[in-house]
Amino acid sequence: MQLGVIGLGRMGRIVVDRVLDAGHDVVAFDLDEEAVASAAEAGATPADSVVDLAERLGDEKRIWLMVPAGEPVDAALDDLGPHLTDDDVVVDGGNSHFEDSTRRAEETPAAYLDCGTSGGPAGAELGFSLMVGGPEWAYEELTPVFDAVATGPAGHDRMGPAGSGHYVKMVHNGVEYALMQAYGEGFELLANGRYDLDLEAVARTWNNGAVIRSWLLELCEEAFREEGTDLGDVDDYVAGGSTGTWTVQEALEQEVPVPLIYQALGERFGSRAREDGRFSRRLANRLRYGFGRHEVARREK
Amino acid sequence: MQLGVIGLGRMGRIVVDRVLDAGHDVVAFDLDEEAVASAAEAGATPADSVVDLAERLGDEKRIWLMVPAGEPVDAALDDLGPHLTDDDVVVDGGNSHFEDSTRRAEETPAAYLDCGTSGGPAGAELGFSLMVGGPEWAYEELTPVFDAVATGPAGHDRMGPAGSGHYVKMVHNGVEYALMQAYGEGFELLANGRYDLDLEAVARTWNNGAVIRSWLLELCEEAFREEGTDLGDVDDYVAGGSTGTWTVQEALEQEVPVPLIYQALGERFGSRAREDGRFSRRLANRLRYGFGRHEVARREK
Amino acid sequence: MQLGVIGLGRMGRIVVDRVLDAGHDVVAFDLDEEAVASAAEAGATPADSVVDLAERLGDEKRIWLMVPAGEPVDAALDDLGPHLTDDDVVVDGGNSHFEDSTRRAEETPAAYLDCGTSGGPAGAELGFSLMVGGPEWAYEELTPVFDAVATGPAGHDRMGPAGSGHYVKMVHNGVEYALMQAYGEGFELLANGRYDLDLEAVARTWNNGAVIRSWLLELCEEAFREEGTDLGDVDDYVAGGSTGTWTVQEALEQEVPVPLIYQALGERFGSRAREDGRFSRRLANRLRYGFGRHEVARREK
Amino acid sequence: MQLGVIGLGRMGRIVVDRVLDAGHDVVAFDLDEEAVASAAEAGATPADSVVDLAERLGDEKRIWLMVPAGEPVDAALDDLGPHLTDDDVVVDGGNSHFEDSTRRAEETPAAYLDCGTSGGPAGAELGFSLMVGGPEWAYEELTPVFDAVATGPAGHDRMGPAGSGHYVKMVHNGVEYALMQAYGEGFELLANGRYDLDLEAVARTWNNGAVIRSWLLELCEEAFREEGTDLGDVDDYVAGGSTGTWTVQEALEQEVPVPLIYQALGERFGSRAREDGRFSRRLANRLRYGFGRHEVARREK
Repeated sequence: MQLGVIGLGRMGRIVVDRVLDAGHDVVAFDLDEEAVASAAEAGATPADSVVDLAERLGDEKRIWLMVPAGEPVDAALDDLGPHLTDDDVVVDGGNSHFEDSTRRAEETPAAYLDCGTSGGPAGAELGFSLMVGGPEWAYEELTPVFDAVATGPAGHDRMGPAGSGHYVKMVHNGVEYALMQAYGEGFELLANGRYDLDLEAVARTWNNGAVIRSWLLELCEEAFREEGTDLGDVDDYVAGGSTGTWTVQEALEQEVPVPLIYQALGERFGSRAREDGRFSRRLANRLRYGFGRHEVARREK
Repeated sequence: MQLGVIGLGRMGRIVVDRVLDAGHDVVAFDLDEEAVASAAEAGATPADSVVDLAERLGDEKRIWLMVPAGEPVDAALDDLGPHLTDDDVVVDGGNSHFEDSTRRAEETPAAYLDCGTSGGPAGAELGFSLMVGGPEWAYEELTPVFDAVATGPAGHDRMGPAGSGHYVKMVHNGVEYALMQAYGEGFELLANGRYDLDLEAVARTWNNGAVIRSWLLELCEEAFREEGTDLGDVDDYVAGGSTGTWTVQEALEQEVPVPLIYQALGERFGSRAREDGRFSRRLANRLRYGFGRHEVARREK
Repeated sequence: MQLGVIGLGRMGRIVVDRVLDAGHDVVAFDLDEEAVASAAEAGATPADSVVDLAERLGDEKRIWLMVPAGEPVDAALDDLGPHLTDDDVVVDGGNSHFEDSTRRAEETPAAYLDCGTSGGPAGAELGFSLMVGGPEWAYEELTPVFDAVATGPAGHDRMGPAGSGHYVKMVHNGVEYALMQAYGEGFELLANGRYDLDLEAVARTWNNGAVIRSWLLELCEEAFREEGTDLGDVDDYVAGGSTGTWTVQEALEQEVPVPLIYQALGERFGSRAREDGRFSRRLANRLRYGFGRHEVARREK
Repeated sequence: MQLGVIGLGRMGRIVVDRVLDAGHDVVAFDLDEEAVASAAEAGATPADSVVDLAERLGDEKRIWLMVPAGEPVDAALDDLGPHLTDDDVVVDGGNSHFEDSTRRAEETPAAYLDCGTSGGPAGAELGFSLMVGGPEWAYEELTPVFDAVATGPAGHDRMGPAGSGHYVKMVHNGVEYALMQAYGEGFELLANGRYDLDLEAVARTWNNGAVIRSWLLELCEEAFREEGTDLGDVDDYVAGGSTGTWTVQEALEQEVPVPLIYQALGERFGSRAREDGRFSRRLANRLRYGFGRHEVARREK
């Protein structure tokens, strides 16, 4: 089958390569001409605009958007709109908010599949995990492409109607934050504990047969191998946070307590306040003087 | 009545002054001779050793220990031991662990009262809150002294048998940690929020009629008045933590979840790790590269 | 001066009474005719509609809304709108979201003051704490009324421009949730701990001189006095949660970690899931069988 | 080589079988004669007492204890003591506290290896992850046995001196609690969220290529497959907790905040208080009446 791919960044390019490898045809577009040229070298048909891509795909277009969440998705859909009919299928493989996806599913003339994509660039060879929301017929129509992009047939599934793919992906990411922080707590205790341990050896031993073995733990093992058991100059500064924030917001809506996910998100916020410090703790410092006349620790000027 | 006071630091001296003010006699001792001289000037009879103090008190000794928790309490009790009978009463007004207090109650020849003392140096004028554990007769015998040291008759009570006074004080302090951090979170949000607020004015308005008014909030108001709405050079470094740690340990024993108290204690630990940063978050930073090839924030050398 | 009061529920009626007591005139309206009649008996001039109330107030109207947050505020403002000019002042004394208040401040022809009101029905005699946002001139114009409704001049202040009053009140409530839960953790530990304690006596002793003394702790003391040390048949079900949810949402926006406030909110959610139990813990129960063949606790049918 | 195995419960029996399968000889003992007979059928030499086992092993004994943590380990060591020399090696493969292990390492006449064993009965076929503490020569001497019991050479490693094996295992379990609860929060949100999802399908899709794939997530998938997407009659009651408690206690000693691990442990405690409810929340319920005259939810008699 023939797939149009819009967005040839790291993730989009992996989609192109895996779909080509599976024997399908790809028409590829990106605002970055070099990315288009590179995809063409790999076997894709280059397009020089969204409109050009749409025209090259003919009737019954199948289009995969792999652009940054937010405005770029709407921009691509605006360009595509006039060229789409309800026989066409558009997949949004990015990290969109599920409410944007349900809105776009309603506004887009084509069938719309919101596709949560997990596995990251590092998962390029294995294939991704794809959580898909949208009309059943469209999901089935795209199955050959999903088979190619995912780890295989078991690596993708239709979660439910419009929005459900990105909804499940959002929650996936919330869990991911908590898992990372949970491993981090364990290693932090070991790093500050009673024994002088080789944390790479700890992680490797755990990855071979222990209950907590996982891909994230393999990445911990890799991190210790590459950075050293003390993580070298890796800073206490954790970027990102949008999907975790969305998860907590949705959990507030549903009145479901998610204290571990919240705490993991809060640690990210806390890591970014490190220079100035946490106001709450500065106040606690001062209050201890207030009632107990304990000395106030003060910053150097 | 006549009271022996051992330990004339900030808190011990307040005990001396309040007991003298109430018309009782005080025999005072401290390893620091100047502290003894100063208490003598205030009207106490000076003693030049624990033994001297014991001898000056005659039969039916009533002795208040106000020395640092731990070894100093045992040392004072060792010195007092040979001079005590079961007609005597010893009060430990410090922050001892309740299990030390139950042990000492068994080992000490006199009746033993463990007395949790709250209110801090700043509460000297108002009087303290005294949570007392130990034999009923001894508690009643000392009531005139408790009336004087506490805010009055309502400011002290017998909690139960040996250890219960320090037990209730331990939990008091655990709650104190959580209250401080709770106010801190509110002010941190206001300090980083959408409006340019005068936090002293906020605290003052709250202290006049709002549900969350409290003495700690009055201390917040004072802190903002004296340090400024941004807390000036007050550092993000919170010392202390022993009674909070004991509270969490006891809650683990009793299988009672105390997540707010735990979190408040953890913030103190976190504030002390600020230079090097939290290992857990450094690992999360690196893991984001591991799966997502996100750039790793690194420390400057 | 003359004040129109719309909404004569528990809180609105307290406003009427306190303003009348201070020697001002009140025109009162509520959808409930009995409430109007009762206010009239107390000395207010009754109005039989919002329009009637507006007409009775003449030029330079000063109107206090004390209706439930949300739709009722907008409905009252819609009715008032045609009768307002920019010489008039409308106060919203309810628990509105600050973003609704900024919107209403823009839409309302009169000067608009958003007034966070804390202290609750139980604070009727003492007066309330009022956190006011909006134009300075309007705040000053209403000062005699604020003096009467608040605990006095110290019990109200202008926080800043439109929305800031309800913003500060929102954070106040978030802190309130955490304080309640912090005291609750302490008493839960004492109730399950090593000593058989009289929790009313504990609370009373703490309220007299201890660092954690507060109005909420006085309410704890009252609760134990009225319900018994085991709280009798008081259920583990905590209603409410909107202002706490707003606080956490705003903290997410501002990337300020508020783990204690979050946890306190989550406990409310958790209390409401008690019948069916927490899904997360049910899964943990089952997973322990998965890896360890530990017996699975199952519900009776 | 020849290995004595004391303790033939589920885990001990797996040790026997894997060591036999690897071509070694096993002498097996358990207080339960049927367990001994069954091991004999599988190829082990039966022993009818600890002493008998010790005598059958001859010089240079290698003995694996797989008995419940605590008293049974000390009892077995007491029996073995007179028969051990410093050429012998004893392995404790159970979940002992690391401080017990360091004490036993000092008291036992033989070389002592504390061996944290993870993987559970369900990991019998794959082999376990073994974290070993103790003398290097003893670890190397036992390597053929560790190769057999573990997943292979990568599944075991010497962490460091006495106690370090059980120390690392303790932290492993603390992390395990947090991971389970993190997945639980995600699935709880999905179970209560906006879409009607098949949670087995979600878990399966995640296990194929998603960042959060892991063995625990495979066990989630299995749980949903076997119990249904709503977990059927699986109760909200999580047993266990000792190793998690130890982890938090050690983290308190080291002043390392582990809020996710703590929270996961607290959820277990909370699940066990479900009948009577949480006292803290009952108090919050009542306090809402105290300040706001909100109706108090009460239990049915």
